[in-house]
Amino acid sequence: MASSMSSSGARSCRRILQLNPCRFVKRYSSTISDALPSAVKIVEVGPRDGLQNEKEIVSTETKVELINRLSGTGLKVIEATSFVSPKWVPQMADHTEVLQSIKRRAGVSYPALTPNVRGLKSALLAGAEEVAIFGAASETFSRKNINCSIWESIDRFQAVVDAAKQAGVAVRGYVSCVLGCPYEGKVLPTAVAQVAKRLYDMGCYEVSLGDTIGVGTPGEMKQLLEVVTKEVPVECLAVHCHDTYGQALANIYAALQCGISVVDSSVAGLGGCPYAKGASGNVATEDLVYMLDGLGIQTGVDLQKVLDVGNFICKVLGKSPSSKVSRAMSKL
Amino acid sequence: MASSMSSSGARSCRRILQLNPCRFVKRYSSTISDALPSAVKIVEVGPRDGLQNEKEIVSTETKVELINRLSGTGLKVIEATSFVSPKWVPQMADHTEVLQSIKRRAGVSYPALTPNVRGLKSALLAGAEEVAIFGAASETFSRKNINCSIWESIDRFQAVVDAAKQAGVAVRGYVSCVLGCPYEGKVLPTAVAQVAKRLYDMGCYEVSLGDTIGVGTPGEMKQLLEVVTKEVPVECLAVHCHDTYGQALANIYAALQCGISVVDSSVAGLGGCPYAKGASGNVATEDLVYMLDGLGIQTGVDLQKVLDVGNFICKVLGKSPSSKVSRAMSKL
Repeated sequence: MASSMSSSGARSCRRILQLNPCRFVKRYSSTISDALPSAVKIVEVGPRDGLQNEKEIVSTETKVELINRLSGTGLKVIEATSFVSPKWVPQMADHTEVLQSIKRRAGVSYPALTPNVRGLKSALLAGAEEVAIFGAASETFSRKNINCSIWESIDRFQAVVDAAKQAGVAVRGYVSCVLGCPYEGKVLPTAVAQVAKRLYDMGCYEVSLGDTIGVGTPGEMKQLLEVVTKEVPVECLAVHCHDTYGQALANIYAALQCGISVVDSSVAGLGGCPYAKGASGNVATEDLVYMLDGLGIQTGVDLQKVLDVGNFICKVLGKSPSSKVSRAMSKL
Repeated sequence: MASSMSSSGARSCRRILQLNPCRFVKRYSSTISDALPSAVKIVEVGPRDGLQNEKEIVSTETKVELINRLSGTGLKVIEATSFVSPKWVPQMADHTEVLQSIKRRAGVSYPALTPNVRGLKSALLAGAEEVAIFGAASETFSRKNINCSIWESIDRFQAVVDAAKQAGVAVRGYVSCVLGCPYEGKVLPTAVAQVAKRLYDMGCYEVSLGDTIGVGTPGEMKQLLEVVTKEVPVECLAVHCHDTYGQALANIYAALQCGISVVDSSVAGLGGCPYAKGASGNVATEDLVYMLDGLGIQTGVDLQKVLDVGNFICKVLGKSPSSKVSRAMSKL
């Protein structure tokens, strides 16, 4: 998988490679072998993407407790909150308080979503050391979700990235609807690649490809990555799979086979899908860790500790974990 | 993947290859290509393995209705019942009535489990045209489950297979605990291969490898198949994955990459796991068909029709389908 690399992209990529020295690709000698990464960085998105899509609004205290507990599991990246207008996302209205109240653990990053310069400034004031911006691969989704075209939204992000860089803060990029759009249906891999490349070239050290509505299957994931990795180095890509149609782990396994070594997930499978009410949310961190453990891929994450955190937050929410590993292990 | 083939095995294999002429292995030209089968035969086990492990005992009329509806979805193999003692499995006490009451559709097979010659005779009297026997890959599981050693159970099956052959009835073999045992933990691939080979050599036209407690992950599935396909041709192997730990589809995807083209599943994910109460049962046929459709692999099965059947049986059972595809599509 050849990758063209812009100079700014190369810099960003080197940076993250320094942060993640274990990103070697191991080849097994088996006749039915795959190339799988020897280590995977899990980006925990439960406190943000998860709680934002849960019906119950949890207290700031609980959010802080959740994040603090997650940081004790070995997770190195925990998306903490979102600096968007409380008018649009009331669940994240306490962003400043959350970011200021958590106990920061050395070696753990707590990114916050910042859709615009105003959000970025608030995030910086609250002490954010990493932020994230998000674009869509589907024009209709972009217009319905953030009321502007894909490229208008991307252009606006340049100012966010510039300001973040000036403050010495790393920026992660998201692309949504990479395997399908609730309005447009199929999304072309080339459309995803264009947006991913733009975010990467603009200075995002990592671009997370989101199957926002969970419609993709493993062959589509492979076809997508084949196209996107021509524009962005595979080391600087992550996958973000929702389990709406039960395909998340199979898609992640396919992505690992393409060399992906950063995977987003949500403790207890927190979250949901606004386009399929009652459907599953993000892939559960527990199920992902279980699979990676079984594959012999290092994550540094303690499965039992994540299970405990999942049970904690689900008790608060008054629901059962969506994680099948959690259900199986709690009933043994 | 080289395979040694006994003469009886070769005969059985030829037979099933005639039944399934589409078992070609297609290679994509992509640089990140896999070998995937162009067609997969789905063996629907909901009416037997599924209902046997549900708490609710459903009426004979409902079972017959379920099987008749399933045969209208395009499924070509529907495991109908089990000729075991009602003392052990009360859910299947109506085996004869079920087998005699269903409307047999041309081209559809309705196998019944027959653990011994007595069961086989009853099945033949009831009109069974295909039967199945089941061995375990774990010694402790075998002793606890059927009160004899692996090899004692296998030896008993020879009489069943001989009698079935004499009656012109095809025999399918199952091996349970292929990726783990609730008592012994890890199970060696070589132990699975020995049992699979014995069932195959004895005359089973197909051997289904069951991850009975759903503990396996994709790398273990690949390692297992690498070993087992040295003893039994891959065309004569099936995988039977429980979704206890959410790994079923990823494991099936890994199996497809090894050339497996027969997959067991259960409509609405019917069933459960007696070793993890409340945990998921078999992989849902809906979720499997969704993945295979997405991979461009032919099954001949109409997803919407399976969804309808899943909703029908779940309504009777008073539960929601375990299928995530079903949940997502019913809420759109």
